[in-house]
Amino acid sequence: MSTTTTLKGQPLDRQVLDSMLRRRMFYTPSFEIYNGVAGLYDYGPPGCALQANVIDLWRKHFVLEEDMLELDCTALTPAEVLQTSGHVDKFADWMCKDPKNGDILRADHFVEDILESRLRGDKEARGVKIEEEAEDPSKKKKKKKTKGIEAVKLDDAVVREYEEILAKIDNYNGEELGQLIKKYEMKNPETGVEPSPPVAFNLMFQTAIGPSSNTPGYLRPETAQGQFLNFAKLLEYNQQQMPFASASIGKSYRNEISPRGGLLRVREFLMAEIEHFVDPEGGKKHDRFNDVKDVELVLLNRHTQLAGKTDVEKMSIGKAVENGTVDNETLGYFLARIQLFLAKIGVDQSKVRFRQHMANEMAHYAADCWDAELHTSSGWVECVGCADRSAYDLSVHAKKTGAPLMVRQRLDTPISVQEWQIDLDKKKFGPKFKKDGKAVEAAIEALSQEQREAFAKELKDNGKIVIEVDGIADEYTPNVIEPSFGIGRILYALMEHNYWTRGSEGGDEARGVLSFPPIVAPTKVLLVPLSSHDSFKPFLKQISYKLRSMGISSRIDDSSASIGKRYSRNDELGTPLGITVDFQSVNDSTFTLRDRDSTKQVRASQEKILAAIKELVDGTKVWADIEKELPNFRRPRS
Amino acid sequence: MSTTTTLKGQPLDRQVLDSMLRRRMFYTPSFEIYNGVAGLYDYGPPGCALQANVIDLWRKHFVLEEDMLELDCTALTPAEVLQTSGHVDKFADWMCKDPKNGDILRADHFVEDILESRLRGDKEARGVKIEEEAEDPSKKKKKKKTKGIEAVKLDDAVVREYEEILAKIDNYNGEELGQLIKKYEMKNPETGVEPSPPVAFNLMFQTAIGPSSNTPGYLRPETAQGQFLNFAKLLEYNQQQMPFASASIGKSYRNEISPRGGLLRVREFLMAEIEHFVDPEGGKKHDRFNDVKDVELVLLNRHTQLAGKTDVEKMSIGKAVENGTVDNETLGYFLARIQLFLAKIGVDQSKVRFRQHMANEMAHYAADCWDAELHTSSGWVECVGCADRSAYDLSVHAKKTGAPLMVRQRLDTPISVQEWQIDLDKKKFGPKFKKDGKAVEAAIEALSQEQREAFAKELKDNGKIVIEVDGIADEYTPNVIEPSFGIGRILYALMEHNYWTRGSEGGDEARGVLSFPPIVAPTKVLLVPLSSHDSFKPFLKQISYKLRSMGISSRIDDSSASIGKRYSRNDELGTPLGITVDFQSVNDSTFTLRDRDSTKQVRASQEKILAAIKELVDGTKVWADIEKELPNFRRPRS
Repeated sequence: MSTTTTLKGQPLDRQVLDSMLRRRMFYTPSFEIYNGVAGLYDYGPPGCALQANVIDLWRKHFVLEEDMLELDCTALTPAEVLQTSGHVDKFADWMCKDPKNGDILRADHFVEDILESRLRGDKEARGVKIEEEAEDPSKKKKKKKTKGIEAVKLDDAVVREYEEILAKIDNYNGEELGQLIKKYEMKNPETGVEPSPPVAFNLMFQTAIGPSSNTPGYLRPETAQGQFLNFAKLLEYNQQQMPFASASIGKSYRNEISPRGGLLRVREFLMAEIEHFVDPEGGKKHDRFNDVKDVELVLLNRHTQLAGKTDVEKMSIGKAVENGTVDNETLGYFLARIQLFLAKIGVDQSKVRFRQHMANEMAHYAADCWDAELHTSSGWVECVGCADRSAYDLSVHAKKTGAPLMVRQRLDTPISVQEWQIDLDKKKFGPKFKKDGKAVEAAIEALSQEQREAFAKELKDNGKIVIEVDGIADEYTPNVIEPSFGIGRILYALMEHNYWTRGSEGGDEARGVLSFPPIVAPTKVLLVPLSSHDSFKPFLKQISYKLRSMGISSRIDDSSASIGKRYSRNDELGTPLGITVDFQSVNDSTFTLRDRDSTKQVRASQEKILAAIKELVDGTKVWADIEKELPNFRRPRS
Repeated sequence: MSTTTTLKGQPLDRQVLDSMLRRRMFYTPSFEIYNGVAGLYDYGPPGCALQANVIDLWRKHFVLEEDMLELDCTALTPAEVLQTSGHVDKFADWMCKDPKNGDILRADHFVEDILESRLRGDKEARGVKIEEEAEDPSKKKKKKKTKGIEAVKLDDAVVREYEEILAKIDNYNGEELGQLIKKYEMKNPETGVEPSPPVAFNLMFQTAIGPSSNTPGYLRPETAQGQFLNFAKLLEYNQQQMPFASASIGKSYRNEISPRGGLLRVREFLMAEIEHFVDPEGGKKHDRFNDVKDVELVLLNRHTQLAGKTDVEKMSIGKAVENGTVDNETLGYFLARIQLFLAKIGVDQSKVRFRQHMANEMAHYAADCWDAELHTSSGWVECVGCADRSAYDLSVHAKKTGAPLMVRQRLDTPISVQEWQIDLDKKKFGPKFKKDGKAVEAAIEALSQEQREAFAKELKDNGKIVIEVDGIADEYTPNVIEPSFGIGRILYALMEHNYWTRGSEGGDEARGVLSFPPIVAPTKVLLVPLSSHDSFKPFLKQISYKLRSMGISSRIDDSSASIGKRYSRNDELGTPLGITVDFQSVNDSTFTLRDRDSTKQVRASQEKILAAIKELVDGTKVWADIEKELPNFRRPRS
């Protein structure tokens, strides 16, 4: 893959894009007048609207489509819950300290930065131009500025070593990262000093709940735990039917060591998580898998990465499950559904891949995990995780609390039979089994009729029977498949993927455009009067009212700027359509409709223009259709 | 007002209602399997859907209707911001401790509980039956169980004293509450001991941001501060036009001393807040005030309360502003808009009043404040605050940071004139004014042409001029009118206001119904097949698909329970409409449509049934209309 490009294949200048996104208030650093806090961002009006539209689609695509049970749980979480889930012990990143200036460094990022910088120095020494280099697709973080890099040629073997380390950078633990730092003599460029060995830093924000600080607590690092704790109630709500999924949309919190990359690594972020509960028996089949089996995915499996490579394979999810690349149908079903969702909201399909986690990289609860990664100017970024958490969470919470977080299978149809009844002699039974009595009794009660008949015979013949108490057939702890979406990262990737620039006709500087699909665009229609003339006002009011009653968001720009300037502003805001009210409108009630991407315009009656807008926003037509149906219009340059 | 009643005037049994709401997962205590944490609740599927619908309407009613600028700011807030805003010093409740058992008591609630309990004891001694008593509308908290109350008659004068204290309970500070406790010898009923004098307890949750705990922070207690800090960017985004409003929907956090009353007093809650920025000059007029001036409100002003009374007046907001009851048009405009919103979502109009804050009760930033209070089984509950925060917040943040949180008025239309230019002699000017130079220069530049001409003459005549530097005419700090909605409280009131019970025809126990308006109901349509017969399935699938494409939420209940049971379940979930698929449907493609509130049914073709549903959900028709248009149906009792 070459240098990051815009939607139209132009080289992408991230600084120019970021400055535009901030100027238009898609997002802005929080508390900026107080000099800000790293890793905290606010969304302004277009960012909020984009986020609301993406969330709305997410809810329709996942929650409504499959009758998932939505929950809204608290972010405040008592420490005990997160101790049980393992987060208090294990939810940490590796952190080094520079002994000279006290700088705190995230160990994996530090190793990555140093090696990448050396590789760039090597390329420079070999005379490869940095700007045109083939970019390493495994590189996940923003390139350091190239200035200050020493052009030092490395041995070919060393280059290969570095590249292999980078391909599996997420697979090292703290000790290993420390060894790499020592072995390759990595120094903090700021001070020239080797940082201290990595120590674990827990990423959760701590607080205390109650007036006398009696309950230590954390802000949740994921929405999942709230869903697990409600499992028994959800199963009851779902009338005991399995499988089912819960879903939750809400803020989570991670106290990142050194946030960077704008919206890509933040300390407070919106997540949308699904917990799909499934019987682990029977290979985790999914009864809608057939609907998605032909969806093609770009896959980077863990074996490839462990071999120090980043080659991807494109295959249908049906094939990937069949040949074992993806473990089971349910996991595969959700990978395909994620792919379809990303396509629907306007993510560039050439910038998506699914990467499997390596063993050490996986979260402490995961049995298998694939990330949907989106390519941005910061390299490949994990935007959706899809983990098989097995029965981990439900089991640990059940064990800790004694709550029955399990399924007691019921027969599909009640049957009426003659059956073997068990008649326990309680007087003998109790003293014999003492505290195990309950379990033994349950195990006996759980015996099938065939078993009972066999045991009855055995008892008669031998005078005793042996029953294994563990194997109660009708109860199981569900496994969990968890698609988990980082909404902020997806939004950022969406902005980059849909960004491009066009030179103005007069040869002015390039102007930014965000070509969001209408369905997610913050505002669908811009209404511009040709001037502030009073005769235009009633038309604006009427059209704006009609659009609102059609559920289509619009905005009037009646500022004194030229029409061109007003359209440019809205190209930057990603508004796909524009209606101009001019003097001809006053005479014959026709209006022009402008397409953001082509800047072409058509002119027709209000009724026809509104109908066209509805079809474009609903996605039943594209601009080319409208251009064929309605008369083209070209405004004379003023 | 008599004892709290249901929608149909039945006495409301809160325990029965709460148990139903939990069973149906409208809400549930968080972390219940870990014994829960007071003041934290999760919303289950119907609660989430109800909340999403109310928020959606809120956004349409306020944000879209008036082109407000929506923001999504972080809950994590550095301490410095909340020091400046005054929250670190002043956002506190008064807390007492029981010296014997260590119980922590919220002082105002403690005083209230004791006095109310004594008043009930007095009534009992006078032979007034407690259940039928006229309820004191100023009572805000849940009644303590009446058992255990001593029937002690009080002097008439003491009764009056107690009632007056209760009417202005929110107006006492900590010292005054301590005096009341001493004066009336109030003891903690748990121990018989007088609690310690009240001390201030700050209600914010504290945490630390960053890896070395370098930035002390809090979870925001309101969304407002994030909006204020973004003021300059919002003004720029709004192309410098005033007035305008920002809006934000998000979680806020308050570490309540002793949460109680279920959803009514919680530690993590969803707020929807508007900050309307307005020029303080000119009486805070609002240009859409005329649209709402005839809206009638029930008002309880501060003078009445200070006189120890709770009499309300009903008047139009036009009159209330005119006679000075409500201070200004902008405040009045929002009170009326709040009233209209509450009516739209289904709040019982006989259970709404607007109560003005008394001086000591107001938040530290407020210049005037009215609460929309909703009557529930816990008495009158503040659900929406509408405060005039004056220029307080913008001023303190501007002062602290030096950021220009102000408006520089521009002329409406550019004009071209011959004008007096100022030509400063910088060599003399700088040394003369030193650090004040900038301010003086700005003041001179701000002089009008008339002033310049006059000064030029004066300078020529006298050789010097005097300019007052403070009075720069074209700059001001906007005032803020803030409608602030506690969504959880509104949801709870909505559930109580729409709840009632009906006896089953067979004389079984009363069955609960939640008669939500269709627009906010969690699910609009229940689809029930008469039985699990396979021939019904294609119809269910088709109708469910069509409803989804119409944007109407539905749910299939194909469980084996009787039709009656399935409808009962959905009456409790507040589902307004039900479609039954039966054998006649298979023959002639007609379906029955059932109305939740009357349990009446009509039968018609799929097309007609779907059209009726659309009209009912959109609110263009009511059930009585549909009953007239479509043939009635009565299912034979099976």
